Amino acid sequence: MIETMQGLKRTHHCGLLRTEHVGQPVVLMGWVQRRRDHGGLIFIDLRDRSGLVQVVFSPDRAGRAFSKAEAVRSEYVLAVVGQVEARPAGTENPNLATGEIEVVARDMRILNPAKTPPFYIEDGVDVDENVRLRYRYLDLRRPEMQRALILRHRAAKVVRDFLDKHGFLEIETPMLTRSTPEGARDFLVPSRLNPGRFYALPQSPQLFKQILMVAGMERYFQITRCFRDEDLRADRQPEFTQIDIEMSFVDVDDVLELMEEMMAYLFRETIGVEVPRPFPRLSYQEAMDRFGTDKPDTRFGMELRDVTDIVAGCGFKVFASAVAAGGRVKGINAKGCAHFSRKDIDDLTAFVANYRARGLAYFFVTPEGVKSPIAKFFTGEEIEAILKRLEAEPGDLLLFVADQPAVVAASLGALRLQLARRLELIPEDTFNFLWVVDFPLLEYDEEEKRFVAVHHPFTSPREEDIPLLETEPGRVRARAYDLVLNGMEVGGGSIRIHRRDVQERMFAAIGLGSEEAREKFGFMLEAFEYGTPPHGGIAFGFDRLVMLMAGKKTIRDVIAFPKTQSATDLMTQAPGEVSPEQLKDLHIRVHLPPEVKAK
Amino acid sequence: MIETMQGLKRTHHCGLLRTEHVGQPVVLMGWVQRRRDHGGLIFIDLRDRSGLVQVVFSPDRAGRAFSKAEAVRSEYVLAVVGQVEARPAGTENPNLATGEIEVVARDMRILNPAKTPPFYIEDGVDVDENVRLRYRYLDLRRPEMQRALILRHRAAKVVRDFLDKHGFLEIETPMLTRSTPEGARDFLVPSRLNPGRFYALPQSPQLFKQILMVAGMERYFQITRCFRDEDLRADRQPEFTQIDIEMSFVDVDDVLELMEEMMAYLFRETIGVEVPRPFPRLSYQEAMDRFGTDKPDTRFGMELRDVTDIVAGCGFKVFASAVAAGGRVKGINAKGCAHFSRKDIDDLTAFVANYRARGLAYFFVTPEGVKSPIAKFFTGEEIEAILKRLEAEPGDLLLFVADQPAVVAASLGALRLQLARRLELIPEDTFNFLWVVDFPLLEYDEEEKRFVAVHHPFTSPREEDIPLLETEPGRVRARAYDLVLNGMEVGGGSIRIHRRDVQERMFAAIGLGSEEAREKFGFMLEAFEYGTPPHGGIAFGFDRLVMLMAGKKTIRDVIAFPKTQSATDLMTQAPGEVSPEQLKDLHIRVHLPPEVKAK
Repeated sequence: MIETMQGLKRTHHCGLLRTEHVGQPVVLMGWVQRRRDHGGLIFIDLRDRSGLVQVVFSPDRAGRAFSKAEAVRSEYVLAVVGQVEARPAGTENPNLATGEIEVVARDMRILNPAKTPPFYIEDGVDVDENVRLRYRYLDLRRPEMQRALILRHRAAKVVRDFLDKHGFLEIETPMLTRSTPEGARDFLVPSRLNPGRFYALPQSPQLFKQILMVAGMERYFQITRCFRDEDLRADRQPEFTQIDIEMSFVDVDDVLELMEEMMAYLFRETIGVEVPRPFPRLSYQEAMDRFGTDKPDTRFGMELRDVTDIVAGCGFKVFASAVAAGGRVKGINAKGCAHFSRKDIDDLTAFVANYRARGLAYFFVTPEGVKSPIAKFFTGEEIEAILKRLEAEPGDLLLFVADQPAVVAASLGALRLQLARRLELIPEDTFNFLWVVDFPLLEYDEEEKRFVAVHHPFTSPREEDIPLLETEPGRVRARAYDLVLNGMEVGGGSIRIHRRDVQERMFAAIGLGSEEAREKFGFMLEAFEYGTPPHGGIAFGFDRLVMLMAGKKTIRDVIAFPKTQSATDLMTQAPGEVSPEQLKDLHIRVHLPPEVKAK
Repeated sequence: MIETMQGLKRTHHCGLLRTEHVGQPVVLMGWVQRRRDHGGLIFIDLRDRSGLVQVVFSPDRAGRAFSKAEAVRSEYVLAVVGQVEARPAGTENPNLATGEIEVVARDMRILNPAKTPPFYIEDGVDVDENVRLRYRYLDLRRPEMQRALILRHRAAKVVRDFLDKHGFLEIETPMLTRSTPEGARDFLVPSRLNPGRFYALPQSPQLFKQILMVAGMERYFQITRCFRDEDLRADRQPEFTQIDIEMSFVDVDDVLELMEEMMAYLFRETIGVEVPRPFPRLSYQEAMDRFGTDKPDTRFGMELRDVTDIVAGCGFKVFASAVAAGGRVKGINAKGCAHFSRKDIDDLTAFVANYRARGLAYFFVTPEGVKSPIAKFFTGEEIEAILKRLEAEPGDLLLFVADQPAVVAASLGALRLQLARRLELIPEDTFNFLWVVDFPLLEYDEEEKRFVAVHHPFTSPREEDIPLLETEPGRVRARAYDLVLNGMEVGGGSIRIHRRDVQERMFAAIGLGSEEAREKFGFMLEAFEYGTPPHGGIAFGFDRLVMLMAGKKTIRDVIAFPKTQSATDLMTQAPGEVSPEQLKDLHIRVHLPPEVKAK
C-alpha cells in the first residue's frame, strides 16, 4: 500500500496557499492532521512545516484516490496531487491562514502510514512533559514547538549577521580541553591515548577567547555549546548554548554600546519588537538598594525603601536592635493591599523566611491611620516619615524586614516579585533591558579567611580603584557588567586585566603567590607576556534569551532535545551502559558507591 | 611605563590606510612588527588584523613619544596618534598595500610590552610545528594563519546564508548523547547523576537529524563538532567540524543539485572561484574501473586501462594465471617516462608492494618497439592491442599490475597519484568536483560470514534493486553519494530507508532479526512507525573543505587550536590530570595497564 514519490515533485507548501493560487495545479506533501467524512466527501487537513490546508476528496474527481483516502489516519504521510479552489461560500474558515481555499484532490499517494500517536499534534496540549520528551519527534511536530525552533534558528542567524557585519570572526574553540581549578564541576572525558589523563568539556571558552585576543584576532565570537555538571535545580541544562564575544582595544562603553545595538537588532529582526535604547545602567549597589537583587525586574515599581535612618532609635526593639547590629530596615509598598487577611500576612512571612528573614513587619494604611500590632512602638513623626518614604496612601500595605543587608535584600527582593505576580503587575510582551555595572571585584570569604574574585581573577578593576587593591580590597569595583532582561540575567562579562603589574596585584589581593598563580593559570600567564592588548567581552545565555523572546516558561521548550532534571534523555535513554571493553580501552573502571550497588 | 587607552578611540585599521587618507589624523592600535632606526628617525611597522603600516617618529614632531619609541621592541602593543602622509618620493614600498603612505606620529602610548617571541611573526616561517602549537597565540598572529581563520569564518557564514535562504533550519543536537553500537570508537563521558552510566560524544548527528525529519522539520542543517576516538594516522583530529544536512521529500537528484549550487556559491563568495556545473557523476564501479579509487582526482589523466581480455591467454604466466584466478590485469600510461631508470622501476615496484601488489610489469615504448624483459612472452598482436588500449606512443612507460581486482585498483590508483605528483601533472588552483554514486549497499564480510552495510543500515537501496536484497545482496546499489574534490572525499550521504517493509528486508539481508534490530536501534525504529517522510541528507567535512580552499596541506592549519597525533593540546596541556575527588564524584577509578604504571 505504501507508494514512492517517484515522478512527483512537491510544488507548494500547504500553509502558504491563498486565493491567488486558485486554479493552479499543486503537488503537496505532508502529514494528515485529521480526516473527516462528510456528505459523501472526505476532508483531510494536510500539514507541513508551513501550516495546514484542507484537501477534499470526492468520488468523481479523486477517482482511485478516494478509496485510498478512506484508509488514511492521523499522521499518515501523503503526497497529494490536486488543484486549488475557492471554498464554497459560507464554508470559509477565518481561523486558518489557508481558510479561503481548499485543494481538490485528483490523485494521492500514501508515502507512509503511522501508528496512532500517544497525544494530539496540536498547540497547548496538556500532556505530561516526560511523555513529550519520550516522544520528542511527535512533540516537535506541534506548531508551537516548530515556531520555537524556527525562532531559535532566526535568532542565531541574526546575531551572526550582526557580528559578521561588525568585523567579528566566528572561531571554533576546543570541546576537548583541560579541567580548570575554578568554577563549577566539569564533565570529564577519559583519554585513551593518554592513560590516566582526562579532557574536560568547556564550561565556557573563557581562556580560549582571551588567548585569541593575545593572538591578535581583535574581534571574536562563537555561538557554542558549554557544559556544567551541576545539580539541575531551577531551569538548567547540563549542556547549554552561549553567544560568546571578545574584543580588543575596548573599554566598558564600547562593549555595552555595541551589545545594545545587537540586542535591538536581534529583537527587531526576529520578533519585530523595538527595544528602547540606551539601556538603563544601574550600579550593583543601586540595584541591590532599590530592588534587593543584581538582576532587577523593572517592568513594575514597588521598589525597596530604606527606613534605617528613621527607625534607628525607635521604640520597636526588633528594628532598633537590627540597626544597632549593623543591619538595615527596609520596606516595600504593596499598593492597595490593605485588604490582605491575617492569613495572607502569615503566608508572606513564611515566604520571606525562605530567605532567612526572621520576621515581616507590616503597616495597613487606612484612612484612619496605620493599623499594625507594632504601630504603638513608633512616634507620630516616625510613622509620618515612614509613610512619606514609602509614598504610602490609604489602602496600601507596607511590609518591612529588619536584618543584615544581604538578608533584607534577598527577602524583600523576592517578596517584591512574589507580590507583583500575585497582583498581576507585570505587563506581558514588555522587554525591559538594563545593565548592572560596577560589581565589586572581590568579596571576603569567611571560610577561607581571604578575599576571593567575585567573577574570575582576570576581571579588571576600575582604573581609579586600583590603589584600593592593597588598602580596601572590598571597595574595589570591577569593570564587569551583566545584562538583565525582565529580571533574568541574560548576559555578563568584563574588561579583563591585560597588564602584568595589575595582574600581580590582583593575585596578591586574593592571597595567591606568583608561583602558585603560575601553577594554576600556567599557559595563560605565559601568553600574557607576549604583547596582550587591552580587551574585554561578554557571553549571553542563548537558550534563556530565546526562551524570553518566545514567551516560554522553560528553556526546555526552545531546545530540540533537552535533558531531564536527572540529566537523562528520555528519547535515546542517554546516558547508557557501555561495554567492559570500552572502559578497558579508556583505562577506567566503574566504582559504584555501596548504596547504588545494592539497587 | 605601561599606559592606558583612556581618552583614545581607535579611528582606523593599519592595513587599510591609503593615499586617500593623506592629511587625516588617525589613532591606530596594534602590534610592533619591527622597529628600525635610520637617519635620526625611528620607523615602526605597526600591525593589526588588517595588515601593516609604517609609522615614523621624528624628534621634533613626536616630542616625548620619540624617546618612548626608542624603548619599543617587536610585539609591543601600541596606540599611535598621528597623521597620514604620503611617503617621500622614492621611498614607496610597492610590496605593501599601505606602501604609498606612512603615519607621522605625534604621540604614542605603550599599552603593553612583550617578551621576545620564540619565532618571527611572519608568513612562511620554518618552525617546528610543535613550537607553533605550544605558542599557538603567536602562531595565530601570522598573517597566513589569520587569513585561514578569516576564510573559515567566511565559509561558515556563506554556507549558513545559503541554507537559511533555502529554508533550512539550524537545529542544535545534543553533545551528551548515547553510545551507539556501530561506527568508530566513542569518546565517553561518565555521568555523575547516573552512576555507572556514560554519555557518548556524537560521532555525527546522524540519528538526531533523521529524528528531526520524523519531527516534520523538513530541512535541517547544523555546522557542528563531531568526535571520533581513532588513532590519528593521516590528517585527522579527535574533534572535527561537519556541515550536516538533512531534507524531507527528496530524491538523490534534489540533494545533489542543491548541494552543487551550495558549493558553487561557497567557492564564489569566499575565494572568488567559479566551479563548473553540473558536477560530473561517476558510478562507484566506473570510478574504481578508471581510477582505482572511489575518490578519484580528475585534475589529470593517466587513467587505468583494463587489458585482461587481451592477455587472458598470453604466454606470460603471471598475467595468464592472475586472469585464470578471477583477477584482472590493468595498466597505466606514464606519458614520456621511457627514460626512467632501472632504479626508478624498482622504487615504483616497492611502492605498489605497499598496496599488496606482488609485482609491477612494465613496457618501455621506444621508436624501435616495446622494450621489456617480458615482451618476449607476448605475440605481436597482443603487444599491438595493449599499446592501442593504453594509447601508447614512443617515449611512454606502461606499467601493469595483475592481481585480484581490489589489489589492482588500490595499487594502480595509488601509483597514478604518485606519478602525477612526481611528474607535476596536477594543476594548482584547480577545483575538480565530482559525485560518486551507486555505491554497493552491502558487502560480504569474510570474517563474519555475512553481508554488512557499506554505509549504515538505514541507507536506502535503489528502488529497482530492492528485489535483489534476497537474491543477490552484493549487487544491490545504494542511493548513496560522495562528493569528491581534487581526490579527497569532502562529503557523503544518502537517501534513507523510510519504509518499514524495506527496513525489515534490509535487516534480514544483514542477518539481523527484528528483536535484535529493536535492541540495537530501539528508539529510532519506534520513531519510524509514526509517519516518517521520505528523506535523505549529506554531511561535509568542514575542516577539509576549508583546507582545500585555503590551499593548505593539513587541517591543523585551518583549526585555531588543533591537537597533535597523540590527541594532546600542546598549549593547554590537555588532557590533564584530575583530582581523586572528581573521579569519586563520577563513580570511576583509573585503572592503568602495567606498562603505563611502570613509567
